[in-house]
Amino acid sequence: MNNKIDIDYKLADELIEKIKNNPMGDWFTLPENFSAHEFRRIKEVAARVRDNSDYLVCIGIGGSYLGARAVYEALGLDDTTKCKLLFAGNSLSSRELKRILKELEGHDFSINVISKSGTTLEPAVAFRILKQALIEKYGEAEAMKRIIATTDPESGALHDEAKRNGYETFDVPSGIGGRYSVLTAVGLFPLAVAGCHIGGLIEGARHCKESQLTNLQESMLITYAFTRFYLYDQCDCDVEVLASFEPCLLYFNEWWKQLFGESEGKNKQGIFPASVIYSTDLHSLGQYMQDGRRNIFETFLKFSHEKAPLTVPAIQDALDGLGYLEGRPMTEISDKALTATIRAHDSGGISTLTIEVLDPESEQGISELSLGFLIFFFETACAISAMLHGVDPFNQPGVENYKKEMFSLLGKE
Amino acid sequence: MNNKIDIDYKLADELIEKIKNNPMGDWFTLPENFSAHEFRRIKEVAARVRDNSDYLVCIGIGGSYLGARAVYEALGLDDTTKCKLLFAGNSLSSRELKRILKELEGHDFSINVISKSGTTLEPAVAFRILKQALIEKYGEAEAMKRIIATTDPESGALHDEAKRNGYETFDVPSGIGGRYSVLTAVGLFPLAVAGCHIGGLIEGARHCKESQLTNLQESMLITYAFTRFYLYDQCDCDVEVLASFEPCLLYFNEWWKQLFGESEGKNKQGIFPASVIYSTDLHSLGQYMQDGRRNIFETFLKFSHEKAPLTVPAIQDALDGLGYLEGRPMTEISDKALTATIRAHDSGGISTLTIEVLDPESEQGISELSLGFLIFFFETACAISAMLHGVDPFNQPGVENYKKEMFSLLGKE
Repeated sequence: MNNKIDIDYKLADELIEKIKNNPMGDWFTLPENFSAHEFRRIKEVAARVRDNSDYLVCIGIGGSYLGARAVYEALGLDDTTKCKLLFAGNSLSSRELKRILKELEGHDFSINVISKSGTTLEPAVAFRILKQALIEKYGEAEAMKRIIATTDPESGALHDEAKRNGYETFDVPSGIGGRYSVLTAVGLFPLAVAGCHIGGLIEGARHCKESQLTNLQESMLITYAFTRFYLYDQCDCDVEVLASFEPCLLYFNEWWKQLFGESEGKNKQGIFPASVIYSTDLHSLGQYMQDGRRNIFETFLKFSHEKAPLTVPAIQDALDGLGYLEGRPMTEISDKALTATIRAHDSGGISTLTIEVLDPESEQGISELSLGFLIFFFETACAISAMLHGVDPFNQPGVENYKKEMFSLLGKE
Repeated sequence: MNNKIDIDYKLADELIEKIKNNPMGDWFTLPENFSAHEFRRIKEVAARVRDNSDYLVCIGIGGSYLGARAVYEALGLDDTTKCKLLFAGNSLSSRELKRILKELEGHDFSINVISKSGTTLEPAVAFRILKQALIEKYGEAEAMKRIIATTDPESGALHDEAKRNGYETFDVPSGIGGRYSVLTAVGLFPLAVAGCHIGGLIEGARHCKESQLTNLQESMLITYAFTRFYLYDQCDCDVEVLASFEPCLLYFNEWWKQLFGESEGKNKQGIFPASVIYSTDLHSLGQYMQDGRRNIFETFLKFSHEKAPLTVPAIQDALDGLGYLEGRPMTEISDKALTATIRAHDSGGISTLTIEVLDPESEQGISELSLGFLIFFFETACAISAMLHGVDPFNQPGVENYKKEMFSLLGKE
């Protein structure tokens, strides 16, 4: 950010207190309060699934979907895990579900169905179809052992079905909403199956809390939350673009968009959350960012370098003009591109913020520690920012409207 | 759209004439003028690659990337093709390129490098690295036979290299810009390799031109182009959200965002292009769409139904409340969700437009014909719309800014 704004730190303190005291604010104490027993159980069940399955199909939508997928892809677990994750029940697409059924053919699999109620349409439809496939493959009794339900601990359709059929279960805690749930069993169980070091995620969140909320005057988190509201309220910026330079962050962007869009987009106001992956999108949305309507601001994510990056090979009689780059690592080029983009957009009149999430020990630059940090960072900043907008960060009344219309069109009683 | 606006059809006619006469407007006559010789050659070379390769690595960025990927994924060719496409050179990520190299291990592959100049940094770096891998695998002579260059027919680094090394080549036509090039060899060659019926794409474009530009008063295309400008100019809508219900359209959305963002985002104005895939995003951005700031309008894409969709299976003692859906196809449910979403957002004060692209013969609903139609539809609407905004639809001066900054940081002479 080019110029610092004046931040009301007393107000920041009050808003943090409000989060602590909110009945839906239990995610805020997770980093230090995570149950050791729950943690152990997640790891044990995950090990069992990894032993007997090539795939774990995660059935869930919105907050029961995006967090796990964001971390799974950001860490590149698909390339390293023994048990791959597939994500179902997040759309009404028959084509997509057929694709998943085809991929499962000839493989061992288990199902993690994630739904607080068990009656949300998309996951419920997918669960019926996938459960049928599981029973056809393993028979009723074995199939029941291969279903893990993450659901309400007290009541609800899925809770009741799990009890009746003896599914292994994990809790969706009642004091944590979907979009704040990635660091509960909702996200941690499938990630543990895929070989994620889930302790690192929680450790990263704890590190964020300690480093960002002890001395607010030094906090990047508080600066971010207040600055983005200032840009909206005082500078007519109604679109925030989250920008990073790694394709593996595509679903992290989607998680972020849900978090902010659903928390802030109420009462006919709020910042519209959009995202880009550079340098790809410098060759698509770059023109707009450079010289389009100045109603946007841009938030850059910067990670540590990968340890052993590819370098530009030397070639003879090169015509491509890349001689000056020979022997240099791609991470260095990417880093320079990031700095260059910030400079270029700054000169184009765009306010930019940069969030650095460094984990110098990490092989890949993006690690469990850095993602845990970033998750807690955005959750807290989002809650503060929504309260600055004067809305409840933890409800989502508007999500019901299309459901009502749909149920009426489908003839539901 | 709820209410029709008054459209100046004489102006529409004039703008279409301007496209025809623009030196960068050659994409407009492609549907009827496509060279039969070029078409045959694309098919022949594609058949050769399909015969000797498990993968074709497409190296390109922006307009040399997104069109082919959009169609490849929309048609689900990855699941059916003998020769898969991989997309490289569209970022500076070392991790991503390593992933591609790993996937190629033990497989036969060829390279299609797509670059007008041959000196664009991202594809040039990836081409050096992938060419090295190709030579290591096949030796110099055979490797040269496995490189197909799509480039400037007259001059440039890649043109010269292709000539020297005897690569097979296709032309990037001089009168067609990157984001308008998907229906040239830039998009058609890799798609032909992947088993796409490329004649269907051109046929769809021709059908669009005939049906939408013969009688402008009846044209959905003209209505779309003028209405979106009206919403921006008269109703303070500065964000357009392209919405559809199939996850396979993710990269079609990306193609669309480049087309509109790069064409219109100039002189500090233009509609910011964003996109969603429903119903996934009803559970993330849905809240914002329903009740956030009213600076957005929404454009829905509606396709024909898939022929043999999955249906909701009946189960005994169901607790999930889906009894009323048993035996019903997912396509019907998805269709109702689309209608419900439009109604809900309409009641939330969002202007919505719907573009129906029907191909009742298609097995999957989304076909070469419907995609070809839609590509030409959006290209033409975008050019008209940009001219309504008073900017040149075919240049992208702002894309150079970050490059200048980057080259300076990297110490390029």
